[in-house]
Order: sequence, then C-alpha cells, then structure tokens
Amino acid sequence: MTTVTGRRAAHEGPRTTAGRPRVGHIDFLNCLPLFWGLARTGSLLDLDLRRDTPERLSDALVSGELDIGPISVMEYLRHADELVVLPEIAVGADGPVMSCLLLSKVPLTSLDGVPLACTTTSRTSVRLAELLLTDHIGVRPRYFTCPPHLPTMLADAPAAVVIGDAALRASLLEADTLGFEVHDLADMWRRWTGLPFVFAVFAARRDFLTDRPDLVREVHSGFLASRELFLAEIDEVCRKAARWAEFDAATLKRYYLSALDFSLGERQLTGLREFARRVGGDAAGFPPDVRIGLLDTP
Amino acid sequence: MTTVTGRRAAHEGPRTTAGRPRVGHIDFLNCLPLFWGLARTGSLLDLDLRRDTPERLSDALVSGELDIGPISVMEYLRHADELVVLPEIAVGADGPVMSCLLLSKVPLTSLDGVPLACTTTSRTSVRLAELLLTDHIGVRPRYFTCPPHLPTMLADAPAAVVIGDAALRASLLEADTLGFEVHDLADMWRRWTGLPFVFAVFAARRDFLTDRPDLVREVHSGFLASRELFLAEIDEVCRKAARWAEFDAATLKRYYLSALDFSLGERQLTGLREFARRVGGDAAGFPPDVRIGLLDTP
Repeated sequence: MTTVTGRRAAHEGPRTTAGRPRVGHIDFLNCLPLFWGLARTGSLLDLDLRRDTPERLSDALVSGELDIGPISVMEYLRHADELVVLPEIAVGADGPVMSCLLLSKVPLTSLDGVPLACTTTSRTSVRLAELLLTDHIGVRPRYFTCPPHLPTMLADAPAAVVIGDAALRASLLEADTLGFEVHDLADMWRRWTGLPFVFAVFAARRDFLTDRPDLVREVHSGFLASRELFLAEIDEVCRKAARWAEFDAATLKRYYLSALDFSLGERQLTGLREFARRVGGDAAGFPPDVRIGLLDTP
Repeated sequence: MTTVTGRRAAHEGPRTTAGRPRVGHIDFLNCLPLFWGLARTGSLLDLDLRRDTPERLSDALVSGELDIGPISVMEYLRHADELVVLPEIAVGADGPVMSCLLLSKVPLTSLDGVPLACTTTSRTSVRLAELLLTDHIGVRPRYFTCPPHLPTMLADAPAAVVIGDAALRASLLEADTLGFEVHDLADMWRRWTGLPFVFAVFAARRDFLTDRPDLVREVHSGFLASRELFLAEIDEVCRKAARWAEFDAATLKRYYLSALDFSLGERQLTGLREFARRVGGDAAGFPPDVRIGLLDTP
C-alpha cells in the first residue's frame, strides 16, 4: 500500500494506441508485401493498424476514421482534394494482373445488352471493365452488382467481373477447366493504352498531413522499407503464404514478381491520369483533369 | 485473352485467410510480448488475428467466433468445460502488477457500505478486489460499474478499481500527486495467499482442438517462441513502445520484467485454483473445484 498526496487528477482509460497513425490494412495477398515488412521490422508497433475489406477501408479514409491507408483508385479520384498520394508505392500491373478479370461464356463482342455480373468488392475493376467494354470493345452490357461468388454470378449472367483470390484461382488453377473466356483487365488496358494500370494507391488525409507531416513521411518510409524487405525475403513469404492461400509458393512468387506492380512512378501516374481522363465526368464524381496531389519527398 | 473449356465451377470470393486459426489479440502493453514475437518471426501470417478489447475477445472465444485467444480468468472459469488452457503462458503477477489497482481516498477498512466504482473493462480484477475487500479486509462496499475514466469514477465514489494503462499511470507517474491510496491487487493477493495471481490465460476451444490439434500446438509453440524473442529484444521493444505509451523505456522494461509474469507453471496454476476455490459458487457461475484442463504438450 502506498499513500500519496496531491491534486493532479488521473486521466482517462487505456491509451496505448494514442497518437499512433491509424492505418488501414487489407488481408489480401496483394497487400502482403506491406504487411510482411511492417511486421518483420517491428514498425507495426508504430501503427494503429485496422484490418478490413478494401471498400470499408476506402470509406474509413474518406470519412476520417483512418489517417493513412490503401484506397481504390475510383474512390481516391472522387476525394483527391482531401487526400495526398504516397509516391513510389501502389497496387497495379503493367500487363496481366491475374487477379482482376472479366470472365465470359461468350465472346466480348456479343455482350451488348446482356447482363454482366459485377463483384461488389471492387469499384475500380468494375469501372475499368465498363470502360474497356464501352470504348474499346464497343458493347454496352447491362451491369448489375452481385456478391463475389462465381457460380451465382455466372448463373444469372453470361459474364462477370471478379477480383482477388477468386480471380487468381480462375487465372491459375481453373484456367483449363472453366469453360469460359478469361480476360485480364490490366492486360486489356495495357494493350489498349500502352500504359500500366493502378488499382489502388496509398494515401494520407490532407488534414492529417498538416497536423503530422513527420508521421506521414515516416509511415511512407516504413512502407517503402517494408516492400524492400518483402522482396528480399520473397521465398520465405511465399512459402508461408502458400500454406493458407490455395496457391503454391512458386505461383505466388510469380504473382508478386511478374503480375503485380507495387511501384508508382511516372509511367504509373500517367496511367492513372489517363484512366481519370477517360472515365472522369459528372457520373464518375470527379473531373477528367482531376489533380493528383503527391506527397513531397526529400 | 485465353479461351478455356471444362465443367468445374469456380468457387467463392477471397479466401486468403481460410483455414487459419482465428486468434484474439489485445492491443495493450501486457499483450505486446506476444504480438512482438509473432510479428518479428512472420508467424502472424499463420494467424487470422482479430484485434479487440479484452471483454469482446473473451466473449468471441466463448461464442466460437475465435478459436484461440486470451481470456480473462473469470470468463475462462465459467466456460472451463468448453476450453483448454495453453500451458506455460499467461498474464499474471507474482507480487505487484502495477496495472490492476484499487485506488481509495480513505483507508480500505473505511469502505464498508460506501460506493466503489469498478471499471467496465475488467471482470477478473473487479472480482479479485471484491474478494480481497470482503474476505481479507472485511468490508463490503457498494460496487457499481463505471467507464474507465478515473476522474468520473472518483467523483462518484471514494474508491475505484482501475486496470491497464490508466492504472499503470497511477502507479508510476502520478503516485506522488494523486491524493489517494494506491493498492496493488496482485500484491495484496500475494501477501494474503503467498501465491501468484493469474489475470488472463490463453485458451483454445475444445472443439477446435478436436478438429485441428496440430494447429493448436503450433500456435502454442508460436506463442512461446514469441515470448522468448520478446525477452531477447526487450530493449528494442521498450524503446519502440515508449514512443506511444506515455512511459519511458526503462519504466516499460521494469513493468515487463518485474511486474508482469507471463508464465503459467505449477505455482501459477495453484494460484488460479485457489482463486477459483475462494470465489467459486452459484453466483460466480462455476464451482469452487472447477477442473482446469490444460493442453497436453509433448
């Protein structure tokens, strides 16, 4: 027992996480490069990491419940004035991405006026598919949204947009048994425009940047260091991830090194601006010439 | 474009996490030893880690939403038949714990019949305080629950049970300025019974153990290895944690090495059984001789 005297009041409850940047984390294969490095370096301790689905994390960043996090490109473009993009890192592809697909039981040129099931789990992929079908292929299917369950999607429609591990499975495991055409959205974009496609960027809220520029820069550096460590330890990561991912380590390594593009340099930014230019307008919720603000780095 | 044929249907959506054990994680200083090692070794990839408050994680383990996780001792004892305790690891203290306190503006012997504010964030500490006051000190305050905000708690009552970082702050930073007595619950227990006190154990659901004994043993081994790595890297952990925790690295190191007891051996189990014996009964929701089932380890 200790007897103590004085006036200062004791304060509030548990505050271990107080002040740490609130950062979004997606538990998908394509965000593993970031998570791996943050964990291995111990940088996770410097983050108030919140795991959720891509859409919910996008919404949380826009609403201010998160300070920094991944955000789908469509959502980013709609809120570009409130956000600043972290340079050098993104989730995209410069050719086939394997995990964002348009599956079709008929040739794409036959999709005019027919139903097309769109996953509820991606806004950017769905918009990209629509753009490609309208302006590149020249057809206008009737789009409807659908939970990401392929048999259900394809029961009601001859074609579907799917993303993530389900798409990866379709690209890899089931490519010889599916009975429909597999179109890789990033590859179609690349062939059409000659540019890489960016599906998601990492962004910080501008108000958080104003308050804590040091922390934003530190998280950004941590992200870049994490990706480097991930690449250095790619075999170990893939061996561990393969245990739970339905894909073998060699396939995962191919996905990480050949399909996904985690960079955000001039070419990727040009691809991003080109996408904004082609889809921008009142319906999209941002102008074609939307300004993409990047974090200044030393 | 790839044209493929065949009959096998593609399945459901993203499944990266499928099959991984669902494990609870508390973002408090006292669970950092586990988290640190799991992160640093990359074992996090083998877990579907869900972060939440201690009470919600306890409930999730009991309801089957989690497979393995920390659980407060009171909740564990109430559901001992559905759970199996992971040996060798727990959160307890063999002397002052610094983070589970009874604060009082008057001597404890004067608390008979007066209001005592109990944090809503701990069931075990509150029951321990009640036991000590009733059977050791010989007083019966009028207990009421209250959100864990010390000024509010002590505005309505001359005494309060507080835990976590708020308690740690009271133990450390404000000990010379608070104006009330600071009683360490684990120390009172130790002086009374001669035994360590266990606040929380790590447990697996029995049904999960039946299904996946290999995974339970693996997670258990991962926990033990994580604690070892934490101890080996204690200076680095404390330096990083100090940045966000309001306590300096030396204080945190003292808390981890001198106050908290992360072991669960014979003495700790004897302490746990003694607590069950003293509080067990109809009101507690478990019998005094409740059987504590431990995971068999090779």
